[in-house]
Amino acid sequence: MMKNKGLKIIPIGGSGEIGKNMIAYEYNENILVVDAGMMFPENDMLGIDYIIPDMNYLLERRQQVKGIVITHGHEDHIGAIRHVIEEFNVPIYTTRLTRGLLEVKLTRQNLVDLADLHTVMAGDSITVGPFNIEFFHVCHSIPDSVGLGIDTPEGLVVHSGDFKFDQTPVDNWPSDFNKLVDFSNRGVLALLADSTNSITSGWTASERKLDKALDDLLGNAKGRVIIASFASLISRMQQVVNAGMKHGRKVAFAGTSMVENAKMGVKLGYLNLPDSVHVSLENALNLPPSKVLIMCTGSQGEPTSILGRLSTGRYKLFDIQEGDTVVLSSHTIPGNEESVSGTINRLFQRGADVIYEDVAPVHVSGHASEEELKLLLNLVKPKFLIPIHGELRHLHQLSHIAQNVGIPKENIAVVENGHIIEFHNEKMGIGDRIPGSYIFVDGLGVGDIGPSVIREREQLSRAGIVIINVVVDKHSGEPLYNPSISSYGFISQEESDILMSRLEKVVIDSVRKINDDQEKKIRKAVISFLHDETHRRPMVFVSISKI
Amino acid sequence: MMKNKGLKIIPIGGSGEIGKNMIAYEYNENILVVDAGMMFPENDMLGIDYIIPDMNYLLERRQQVKGIVITHGHEDHIGAIRHVIEEFNVPIYTTRLTRGLLEVKLTRQNLVDLADLHTVMAGDSITVGPFNIEFFHVCHSIPDSVGLGIDTPEGLVVHSGDFKFDQTPVDNWPSDFNKLVDFSNRGVLALLADSTNSITSGWTASERKLDKALDDLLGNAKGRVIIASFASLISRMQQVVNAGMKHGRKVAFAGTSMVENAKMGVKLGYLNLPDSVHVSLENALNLPPSKVLIMCTGSQGEPTSILGRLSTGRYKLFDIQEGDTVVLSSHTIPGNEESVSGTINRLFQRGADVIYEDVAPVHVSGHASEEELKLLLNLVKPKFLIPIHGELRHLHQLSHIAQNVGIPKENIAVVENGHIIEFHNEKMGIGDRIPGSYIFVDGLGVGDIGPSVIREREQLSRAGIVIINVVVDKHSGEPLYNPSISSYGFISQEESDILMSRLEKVVIDSVRKINDDQEKKIRKAVISFLHDETHRRPMVFVSISKI
Repeated sequence: MMKNKGLKIIPIGGSGEIGKNMIAYEYNENILVVDAGMMFPENDMLGIDYIIPDMNYLLERRQQVKGIVITHGHEDHIGAIRHVIEEFNVPIYTTRLTRGLLEVKLTRQNLVDLADLHTVMAGDSITVGPFNIEFFHVCHSIPDSVGLGIDTPEGLVVHSGDFKFDQTPVDNWPSDFNKLVDFSNRGVLALLADSTNSITSGWTASERKLDKALDDLLGNAKGRVIIASFASLISRMQQVVNAGMKHGRKVAFAGTSMVENAKMGVKLGYLNLPDSVHVSLENALNLPPSKVLIMCTGSQGEPTSILGRLSTGRYKLFDIQEGDTVVLSSHTIPGNEESVSGTINRLFQRGADVIYEDVAPVHVSGHASEEELKLLLNLVKPKFLIPIHGELRHLHQLSHIAQNVGIPKENIAVVENGHIIEFHNEKMGIGDRIPGSYIFVDGLGVGDIGPSVIREREQLSRAGIVIINVVVDKHSGEPLYNPSISSYGFISQEESDILMSRLEKVVIDSVRKINDDQEKKIRKAVISFLHDETHRRPMVFVSISKI
Repeated sequence: MMKNKGLKIIPIGGSGEIGKNMIAYEYNENILVVDAGMMFPENDMLGIDYIIPDMNYLLERRQQVKGIVITHGHEDHIGAIRHVIEEFNVPIYTTRLTRGLLEVKLTRQNLVDLADLHTVMAGDSITVGPFNIEFFHVCHSIPDSVGLGIDTPEGLVVHSGDFKFDQTPVDNWPSDFNKLVDFSNRGVLALLADSTNSITSGWTASERKLDKALDDLLGNAKGRVIIASFASLISRMQQVVNAGMKHGRKVAFAGTSMVENAKMGVKLGYLNLPDSVHVSLENALNLPPSKVLIMCTGSQGEPTSILGRLSTGRYKLFDIQEGDTVVLSSHTIPGNEESVSGTINRLFQRGADVIYEDVAPVHVSGHASEEELKLLLNLVKPKFLIPIHGELRHLHQLSHIAQNVGIPKENIAVVENGHIIEFHNEKMGIGDRIPGSYIFVDGLGVGDIGPSVIREREQLSRAGIVIINVVVDKHSGEPLYNPSISSYGFISQEESDILMSRLEKVVIDSVRKINDDQEKKIRKAVISFLHDETHRRPMVFVSISKI
């Protein structure tokens, strides 16, 4: 609708959650980037390590990118930072704890010197190009999270970030309601609001609720207690430490990232961890079981995490023993359900009692539920609403909620990643969709693997492979030796021998019968034979050496 | 503990849910089999169609198997029937609707003549070897479900089957409380109880609750309404038909299994489907949208189901259009979360409003929650408890619940599949574990694929494959031609060319350098080169033709 005029807001990424990992604000050839996160691959993205947003739109406008703001320190908001700083030499603004987490991460990757990090505090304002950005405090499942008031030449935009309205947060610092009212008094053009939990009715429970659950749990547990959570959950660490102190247990951390984050949290003053309660893991393992509280990673059932290895008996420092209580203090990320419940079952198998979200209140969500979202809308009173941070179904649900609160449907932009939302003269329009999607990271390769390679991997995994080599006389086309045939992932060894010797005949026959296009025709004959025999379709690779 | 003496109860299957698909009752060389179900493969069981219990223990005692009882008509209780009747020529006892569903299934497989089916009714008794079996009615999410009172020489065993205590079921036939009390008056040795929902507190909602949700939904919908559910949910069909009649909509069924089951349900009297409301799908599509109610399969997001194809625009009979309301009247089976939410998002993308369990009460569970389980325990008053039908974590949770109700921990057997639970002289012991696990079915192959083949498929899918063929002089070992190299699922075509030409040099060099064990050493050199270059580890297949 408006070429190079007005304000553009672009959620950047592929299918999946919208604007979760990165959002661009663009005005008059000036671009502000909010967040630089990664996604974990879905179950069918075979072999992929992680996924980052496609930054091509920004790379084509490299000189226009003026700065980056990170709202909080979770992986889905900071996990792509190394790929960003390798491309853009611009200031990155974060709060202290978020910066601490970034520095721990970048130091491990030997990249910390590349990042132009600037510390801001909730309440501060900065200027990036034509944007004046006010940081305001929000509660989330990690301390020092912020939302943004972005003053643009087209009007004030409020960006909620990941948030909840916890009235009794662990750090006693509620979300900044005053600032939200201040914004609405000034008049808000548009609100970008976290829709992650829009399908949950009511009000998300306070983190404080966990204190009671931990208290009950430690009061009842006779043996060691092992609590798994995310390495970045500094406030959860504090709650565990407090509960440990109350119940006379020593607290140890297991897992590099958790140990490093705890150290950083102490250093920056976000974690109060007295020497009288903190012990090393080795020391903890020498204490009586009733005195031990261990916090570790692995609440998503990741096979290589501490909890994952404990569940399979492959953690070298200790084993689960009868009488242990294991707590998964976390919500299962969609897609991880099978690995989490498998981990829980295996821990039971090893004799532990296992406590998890479904059976006790050992986790609360970090995102606002329906009533909080309504309050946000009523406090901010935006003219336009852009639901973000959820899948399409969550965005639609927030749209329903907002319509109930009184925002007209035509003032709500439910869009997918890549759509340009344009504002000019207090009007909103949906512009073009920028090309690009998510970028797969696999080993050293960033973006060299696309859907076609994934599709090939999926084909390989469906029924395995059969590899056939034939050496033929280049003049007569006659096979000179018996073909070499091997299979992998197709059939078990015992069943294979008879089938393969019959297949050998099929190959020899088809080599003899045909002269042109031999490889293709042999492949076809083999596929047809194997399908008749097994009803399976392995990938068949034929190579002919003509000598 | 007791060789060939006493009663043995054996849940048969692999890891996963315990006794869900099949349980054997054995006394003095007489075996009664309860249920013959299948499991859907987990996400990491690549290429597998479905899974059945390992019947080896029964096959080794073929003459001892005296009869099979099926508790209800869901796939996880009847899905392996074709494999059972191919092996055992014994009577199969089911209620009428379950028999109808079995016959629809076996007729499609041309196997119906092989099955020795016998109809029983709740209230009936039959004798199978030393067992006297009384069938009693239970509510579940499918009509005509039964539990079993199995009178054995060691005492009375109550087998709950899948059940809930719906007080206002759609067919007005509550679970048979009287019979449960009758059992407890006679004295119950052991109870096998459905623990599927043991981690859910409270009382499972009545199926009747859906009537209100459907009423609201049809009252509000302006366009077509499309309701997806399982093909076997005859009572859900009835609720949809009733709601359609009330709101003046014609009802059509889409999908072969749904159409066939509806027809069978009408024929047997389980579905009241007046001609005035029932239309064919073609006719429905010619009616005004506000008059149309379509029921179809695909509530688990299966890509080839009707709803799966509607979500990707690949259903040939019609497309989703703006104004359609799509309802997923189902619970997402663990492991299907990603495909279900993907389907929902794609339906939104196509312009439908989508209603699902999280946003409206369009589904209720078919399994008893905590308070119902307590009631079951208090009604039946068993001496011993064997939690079944859940994962290990659900069994442990039911054990917790039962201990609260007063059953001593040592009288509760939380075991995995394959463990023999033995009863003799009113004592319970855990005996040996029978070998075997689940059997994978892939195409025509039943059990020819084990974990090692699955592991190979997983390896293939992780980083793809590289195939190398070298023709060498059999005397000098020198390569005679350039090696042929191809890859699949490893790297995209654009990136591949340079890497592969460099790889060619690596292969030629390593062929020249070595004389013994060439294939293995070339493979090693290739793996090392590719890992240095990409940090990936594709499977490398080397074949050398010596001429």
